[in-house]
Amino acid sequence: MAAKQQTGEGTMIVVLKSGNTAQDIEHVCMKIRKMGLRPHVSKGIERTIVGAIGNEALLKVDQLEAIQIVDKVVPIMKPYKLVSREFREDNTHIKIGNVTIGSGAITVIAGPCSVESREQLLQTAREVKKAGATLLRGGAFKPRTSPYSFQGLGEDGLKLLALAREETGLGIVTEAMEPSVVPLVARYADVIQIGARNMQNYPLLKAVGKVNKPVLLKRGLCATMNELLMSAEYILSEGNHQVILCERGIRTFCEFCRNTLDLNIVPAVKKETHLPIFVDPSHGTGKYDLVIPMARAAVACGADGLIIEVHPNPEEASSDGDQSLTPKNFAKLMKELTPIAKAVGRTL
Amino acid sequence: MAAKQQTGEGTMIVVLKSGNTAQDIEHVCMKIRKMGLRPHVSKGIERTIVGAIGNEALLKVDQLEAIQIVDKVVPIMKPYKLVSREFREDNTHIKIGNVTIGSGAITVIAGPCSVESREQLLQTAREVKKAGATLLRGGAFKPRTSPYSFQGLGEDGLKLLALAREETGLGIVTEAMEPSVVPLVARYADVIQIGARNMQNYPLLKAVGKVNKPVLLKRGLCATMNELLMSAEYILSEGNHQVILCERGIRTFCEFCRNTLDLNIVPAVKKETHLPIFVDPSHGTGKYDLVIPMARAAVACGADGLIIEVHPNPEEASSDGDQSLTPKNFAKLMKELTPIAKAVGRTL
Amino acid sequence: MAAKQQTGEGTMIVVLKSGNTAQDIEHVCMKIRKMGLRPHVSKGIERTIVGAIGNEALLKVDQLEAIQIVDKVVPIMKPYKLVSREFREDNTHIKIGNVTIGSGAITVIAGPCSVESREQLLQTAREVKKAGATLLRGGAFKPRTSPYSFQGLGEDGLKLLALAREETGLGIVTEAMEPSVVPLVARYADVIQIGARNMQNYPLLKAVGKVNKPVLLKRGLCATMNELLMSAEYILSEGNHQVILCERGIRTFCEFCRNTLDLNIVPAVKKETHLPIFVDPSHGTGKYDLVIPMARAAVACGADGLIIEVHPNPEEASSDGDQSLTPKNFAKLMKELTPIAKAVGRTL
Amino acid sequence: MAAKQQTGEGTMIVVLKSGNTAQDIEHVCMKIRKMGLRPHVSKGIERTIVGAIGNEALLKVDQLEAIQIVDKVVPIMKPYKLVSREFREDNTHIKIGNVTIGSGAITVIAGPCSVESREQLLQTAREVKKAGATLLRGGAFKPRTSPYSFQGLGEDGLKLLALAREETGLGIVTEAMEPSVVPLVARYADVIQIGARNMQNYPLLKAVGKVNKPVLLKRGLCATMNELLMSAEYILSEGNHQVILCERGIRTFCEFCRNTLDLNIVPAVKKETHLPIFVDPSHGTGKYDLVIPMARAAVACGADGLIIEVHPNPEEASSDGDQSLTPKNFAKLMKELTPIAKAVGRTL
Repeated sequence: MAAKQQTGEGTMIVVLKSGNTAQDIEHVCMKIRKMGLRPHVSKGIERTIVGAIGNEALLKVDQLEAIQIVDKVVPIMKPYKLVSREFREDNTHIKIGNVTIGSGAITVIAGPCSVESREQLLQTAREVKKAGATLLRGGAFKPRTSPYSFQGLGEDGLKLLALAREETGLGIVTEAMEPSVVPLVARYADVIQIGARNMQNYPLLKAVGKVNKPVLLKRGLCATMNELLMSAEYILSEGNHQVILCERGIRTFCEFCRNTLDLNIVPAVKKETHLPIFVDPSHGTGKYDLVIPMARAAVACGADGLIIEVHPNPEEASSDGDQSLTPKNFAKLMKELTPIAKAVGRTL
Repeated sequence: MAAKQQTGEGTMIVVLKSGNTAQDIEHVCMKIRKMGLRPHVSKGIERTIVGAIGNEALLKVDQLEAIQIVDKVVPIMKPYKLVSREFREDNTHIKIGNVTIGSGAITVIAGPCSVESREQLLQTAREVKKAGATLLRGGAFKPRTSPYSFQGLGEDGLKLLALAREETGLGIVTEAMEPSVVPLVARYADVIQIGARNMQNYPLLKAVGKVNKPVLLKRGLCATMNELLMSAEYILSEGNHQVILCERGIRTFCEFCRNTLDLNIVPAVKKETHLPIFVDPSHGTGKYDLVIPMARAAVACGADGLIIEVHPNPEEASSDGDQSLTPKNFAKLMKELTPIAKAVGRTL
Repeated sequence: MAAKQQTGEGTMIVVLKSGNTAQDIEHVCMKIRKMGLRPHVSKGIERTIVGAIGNEALLKVDQLEAIQIVDKVVPIMKPYKLVSREFREDNTHIKIGNVTIGSGAITVIAGPCSVESREQLLQTAREVKKAGATLLRGGAFKPRTSPYSFQGLGEDGLKLLALAREETGLGIVTEAMEPSVVPLVARYADVIQIGARNMQNYPLLKAVGKVNKPVLLKRGLCATMNELLMSAEYILSEGNHQVILCERGIRTFCEFCRNTLDLNIVPAVKKETHLPIFVDPSHGTGKYDLVIPMARAAVACGADGLIIEVHPNPEEASSDGDQSLTPKNFAKLMKELTPIAKAVGRTL
Repeated sequence: MAAKQQTGEGTMIVVLKSGNTAQDIEHVCMKIRKMGLRPHVSKGIERTIVGAIGNEALLKVDQLEAIQIVDKVVPIMKPYKLVSREFREDNTHIKIGNVTIGSGAITVIAGPCSVESREQLLQTAREVKKAGATLLRGGAFKPRTSPYSFQGLGEDGLKLLALAREETGLGIVTEAMEPSVVPLVARYADVIQIGARNMQNYPLLKAVGKVNKPVLLKRGLCATMNELLMSAEYILSEGNHQVILCERGIRTFCEFCRNTLDLNIVPAVKKETHLPIFVDPSHGTGKYDLVIPMARAAVACGADGLIIEVHPNPEEASSDGDQSLTPKNFAKLMKELTPIAKAVGRTL
């Protein structure tokens, strides 16, 4: 693929340990030359630094760090291409029906953690639609920590989602967990979700990179921004440029939330990439009473959308009841978000 | 002190390892009785649980966990008293001149990381005053990672702060780093800051607990919410109830910020305590271009105030230049915050 | 499957918020009864606690936490069954040829990160065999952060591994990354590796649970011990009881290692499970000069085996050169491990 | 002080954002020249890098990062001097009576968390002495999370420690928590301990830097290796070169230990500094049954000493009972350590 050849010029700074000899320096330079790059030696009294400049595809940090006289290697270039603002300056817009993600309008995805039944799903769909949600979420294939927990309704769940779309007009967002079910999920879904635990499931990323459906890529529990962008790069490099990033909480030592919602990534990632970024305060905090204030904060710092768990009766939910809003609280959330969106120059 | 006797009834759940005998259970019950508490045995087929109920002051988790047949001890009571909403339901208001912290008005503290010179400080003070700041910050005693870095101007810095107050009318916020300088700092400051590295410096907490000045208590880099509240409890238990909590970023694996500003603590702590909470997006992110969006988010999720680093010329700052706003950007921040404050029913 | 019905009696402690009414308590009890469990109310002056005792399969923490008057739910039972020492007291032994994993003899798996060529692999295999390695590792399918990095030789790599086994007699350990390649990998491998990024790839865990080959399950970068054991439970619950756990470093704030090798899990997990646990100090530290001391420490604290990256020429490795040992250093490691193994009553 | 002038030549790599102009580059070079350093411009097609070489004392990362066209600044030099292997190649040996810390013999410090009574302390001292401990630990001033917990016996505790030394001949290790008590503690103690919470209490570090007593400096809960070494540098820069570093567990997401003992720092720090490093597996894990295996691991990876909590009756301890060994288990530990020490060429 042409996209895979996207590389520019890069630089590495190779810092040598003290006590290096002329022979050591020449060994490092020779390695750099063998990679097809140009070495630049910069000798101080105590430290010697060798710059390696040339085609990024040729820079191999690992190989240089493996040289024993090398103290560390600092790569200067960015490892991602297609997702970067340098590759594409304007924000990516993704159209789903009459919704345009990444535009001035904030997108709100709402719905239950799991699709449980026709009634539960349709009731939720109607309620979130009425309150102003733009898309409907619901899990048919559920990644659960325990093999003994409810694993989702599978294709029956997808059919119920399609039914809810038919009735409400809401586009649907649902998760795919393995490459072999991607075609099935793509047949039903408007947006395919990649869950946090699968952010670095590369065969799955490649599979969704080959279909023509938007992908909601959730940040892994301990993923850096760079790793999130590299996972998006996997999808774009296969030809699918419709990727929505999603912050959903990282794992820290904090005891008062299930996860630590890291809103800092919203403005930080905007500098790096043209892709839209959403925030999931439901998984991000794991506490229903933190969802509304953190959703407000997400919009205030620049998120392009939200994904919110709503259940008609959280006490009966098969999963994540403690982080789900009731339809009434969801309506309250939408009302509170409207002036915040306006304050940051957007609409809801 | 009377405050130190503040205790209520508490409970601990003592879970025994499997394979326990009647004798083991009796040993645990006997220990609980010796603490002056009542044991309640609850025997299942596989697990045995002993509840211990009674005066919280008598509950000793450590001693029960040290019993070898004990698997774990789950304390049910909260370890803090005076800071809790249960002790005092209404929000604490703190008055400094004509500023009331914790009320409907958002308080904005602004100023340089370090007091460097008369000109630098006065110029900054005038600019932040003009833009709408409520209080002036500036460090005279600076905790620096390196003994070779600028350590602050000491008392000379305090004098310059007093001068700036005289000229602008802004109350001043400055840090004390050791018990012996607390009286000196209290003589000049309107609010005494306890830095993140000193959040568990108990002699210092006791010292500021004995003066009649508001204290801004910054959350430690890896402090839990519980630990933050316990450190505040140290100050209140000495008689000083004017404590402002402050989130300023925690340490995580994230690579794109110096720290990870943890806004989740704002709504979470509001449920637990009557004390006001501020947010410091300058230290919290370490990046000047994240300060404005994260300040907006802080107000959106319910912060009572902000503390912002402003320097007339960040490129010349003795410390933290990369996270300081210029006066021009600070004025922009204040302008952007106004509609957000209004959207959450507050004023700026 | 019979295994899936493995459940015992469990208990949950439901702590109510203060200010609860008799009606609230009855609501909680009713929910517990509806789950088929027995509630036990324990009312103190300030706090009320409700115990829920009964069949573990019926305990639904989420549903109880979703009740608004509930402060928190503390589950007392362990969520895993088949992997627990309570299910099986004796250590699991896994036989691969004449190697018995989990016995008194320490198992050492060694080899390159990636299979790169016939020469590279055979040379490494011969050298590690000579130095005393028990099994040969080598990646044919490689999970790489970047789509532009070397992705492994695929089936050609598996064929080279089989060739190396034929020549040296060493059993082979190699990774499967998606369910659809499990049968292929199982045809060649003696042990199927599940990488850290895939520890919660549940379709993959189920797939390897259905083959009759030992599985080396690597701990995820931010996996708790409980999550690691639950992932192992997925494999056992499908019928494959030959699982080897593997610690390979967690992600923390530490700057001096690529990851933080968490040896504490070795003695901790031994209390919980009958499964053997290995340690990978190569990925666990990411620094070749930490591999030898940390391998010694792993054996000293009770690890059943080690997995070590060895490359004939680390400076030329396609991946992970900076954490690979030369054959000469690997021989040194084996020599240093021998007296440590003896000191803890084991052999090498 | 002469020590404070210890600086060598350093280098910073200043990476510019893309889209920079000749004028931007000249602005950066001018700043570098104004610091008294030499700039070296290295222009690639997409990226421009400016090296800044010269006296380390003049390198100001903050000021360069504050320039808006600067993307990041990578300092190449090490910020510590006196503690570095480059300053002093040979290991520091510290003599306390007839014990030499940092030599071939492993030092074992043992004793209770808190000094509670004459009987408790003397009994423990006799037992640990008999089992082979080299020094006696015991807290007289205790940093406790809660103001309502036992805070230590103060000077009475110090007197009991002195009594225990008189009777057993064991040198004593005890903590100082604030600058004003350093002279008092120094009068009694053979080694002054700085606790983890005070690792960055700079006034305290300066105070112990001015006395002529060895200092045991515990790593903070979320301190990097660099920060630990910088805190040691504070002590050395005041003239006291007798510093013992101590790993005691870091804070992570892990649920099975109170802290995560990070043994990786032992071999890592040995490359950087000439100072000895100890390990505290009692606080490091918080679980008495992990202390013995992790102590073995600590010795296996190169620790110079251990600090172990021992209490005659852990179930009655005022603090940390669940991580204390009984004297009998301590004797078992010492017996298990002997062959490990021998295996790594040391004695116990």
